Amino acid sequence: MSILTVGTMAFDSIETPYGKVDKVIGGACTYISWAASYWHKDISLVSIIGDDFPQDEVEQLKARGVNMEGLVRVPNKKSFYWSGKYHKDMNGRDTLVTDLNVLADFNPILPQSYRKCKYVMLGNLTPDIQLSVLNQMEERPKLVVLDTMNFWMDIALERLMEVIAKVDVLTINDEEARQLSGEHSLVKAAAKIHSFGPKFLIIKKGEHGALLFHEGKIFFAPGLPISDVIDPTGAGDSFAGGMIGYLARTNDTSFNNMKTAIIYGSVMASFCVEDFSLSRLRHLDEKMIHARIRQFESLGLFDVVELNLA
Amino acid sequence: MSILTVGTMAFDSIETPYGKVDKVIGGACTYISWAASYWHKDISLVSIIGDDFPQDEVEQLKARGVNMEGLVRVPNKKSFYWSGKYHKDMNGRDTLVTDLNVLADFNPILPQSYRKCKYVMLGNLTPDIQLSVLNQMEERPKLVVLDTMNFWMDIALERLMEVIAKVDVLTINDEEARQLSGEHSLVKAAAKIHSFGPKFLIIKKGEHGALLFHEGKIFFAPGLPISDVIDPTGAGDSFAGGMIGYLARTNDTSFNNMKTAIIYGSVMASFCVEDFSLSRLRHLDEKMIHARIRQFESLGLFDVVELNLA
Repeated sequence: MSILTVGTMAFDSIETPYGKVDKVIGGACTYISWAASYWHKDISLVSIIGDDFPQDEVEQLKARGVNMEGLVRVPNKKSFYWSGKYHKDMNGRDTLVTDLNVLADFNPILPQSYRKCKYVMLGNLTPDIQLSVLNQMEERPKLVVLDTMNFWMDIALERLMEVIAKVDVLTINDEEARQLSGEHSLVKAAAKIHSFGPKFLIIKKGEHGALLFHEGKIFFAPGLPISDVIDPTGAGDSFAGGMIGYLARTNDTSFNNMKTAIIYGSVMASFCVEDFSLSRLRHLDEKMIHARIRQFESLGLFDVVELNLA
Repeated sequence: MSILTVGTMAFDSIETPYGKVDKVIGGACTYISWAASYWHKDISLVSIIGDDFPQDEVEQLKARGVNMEGLVRVPNKKSFYWSGKYHKDMNGRDTLVTDLNVLADFNPILPQSYRKCKYVMLGNLTPDIQLSVLNQMEERPKLVVLDTMNFWMDIALERLMEVIAKVDVLTINDEEARQLSGEHSLVKAAAKIHSFGPKFLIIKKGEHGALLFHEGKIFFAPGLPISDVIDPTGAGDSFAGGMIGYLARTNDTSFNNMKTAIIYGSVMASFCVEDFSLSRLRHLDEKMIHARIRQFESLGLFDVVELNLA
């Protein structure tokens, strides 16, 4: 089933305790498309770049089955640029520079062929753009996944709530779930967020894994402990890409299949963090990925023993 | 198999976003003994109290199979007292008062009948006391579990390292594992901590669950999302108690059985936080506990699907 994905394609400059890279390829849409393309070849991309973005990167994605009809390249302008420095513990980061550049004028018009896509992945962007994309769909997609962040809750909550009301799956982190719902308990936060619209809530907790809430049921995907987390940038987008790629491929949006989709997302995220930029995501093969799925499985398996009380 | 447990019995005054309690029963040894006593009736307790500690509490534990020969009651002195206030998000807390009282002179002499216990649970205390208890054992116990905290790493690291070298299982939280090892990656932290002595490292992550490291293998126990976390005090000790109770009952210290033991610990911790003090731990039955073990199981189960690459 066809996937529509919208989000940034960008340059990142990143410093982590493991090193520093300058103007490497980044952006939500880039990570989502790379991760999804392992499972799916019918991906319609919507994004905007300046004339500084390497055409070779565009061609590589094309070669992986990504339709670029919805990619706008603006002449004489620069691509979106983000620079950040991670704290020593990697769990926090400071943004040093955000240059919107082409993103400031991003007002995507969906190509006709995109408007019947069944799976829609709205990468983290202003709610206005996310809403505009949804409004251009000719039919209600089978599944809409929304990624967002606290920044939009702070400055555009009303608009964000409009988008949230229209999606099936919301992916945010635990602090954002608490902020959005006003509830500290994630169980209560989930109930409240379901009432805003999304039938599925995915809470991404980084190294601690991810939680899926749906109709009173909960799934806890473990976080795979990684020897060397080099750079967490793009992990959330790789997660989203792996998940939507798997869902579109299997075309099954049941709770049960959503659980496996989250493992696919977690697997792609676990690879992503092992190097800067897309370096690790570019060179995966089936054997590596299946081995890691098995690692996720064995990580959480235990013998259920029901002792009688003493 | 007999359990020896050493730790505080105390009064706590606690404030959380859900309420405030004054001078309720607390202390590591109290929580450990209550949690363990569901699975095991041969528990030898070592602790110290003042004449203010209710004899009824002592009798209740006796009735649950806890041997009180190693409990010292000091006349004309007060029991250990701790007072704390949890932050709004419950993940942090400020200590308001620590009155050592009787604890300042605690120098436990093990009754003869205690000295051949096979399972030893060293609750969080000064490393000197933990070491003294271990040195009084007549035979090397089958399994020694050590709980400690960053406070002892800060002020008594050398002595703590002596204890750590003598134990089989160390339970600490993720920040403490990082502090103790000097490694950010928990995989590397575990390898380093194994080299200090303990064959098993358990990293307690509160609402995010727990990790078990052993000989290059990893188990991730999920954290059960709880609707109303009323008071996290004692959760780590309830975890330790549930775990050691299960281990002593089954008398099996394999990695596989240790995984189930961690689920037993997690189950007892999940009950503990649902009310202040020991209120919830006092009134559990087999049906409730087994149901919760099943909840932990279903929380992490997913269908393993190995798709071919697109």
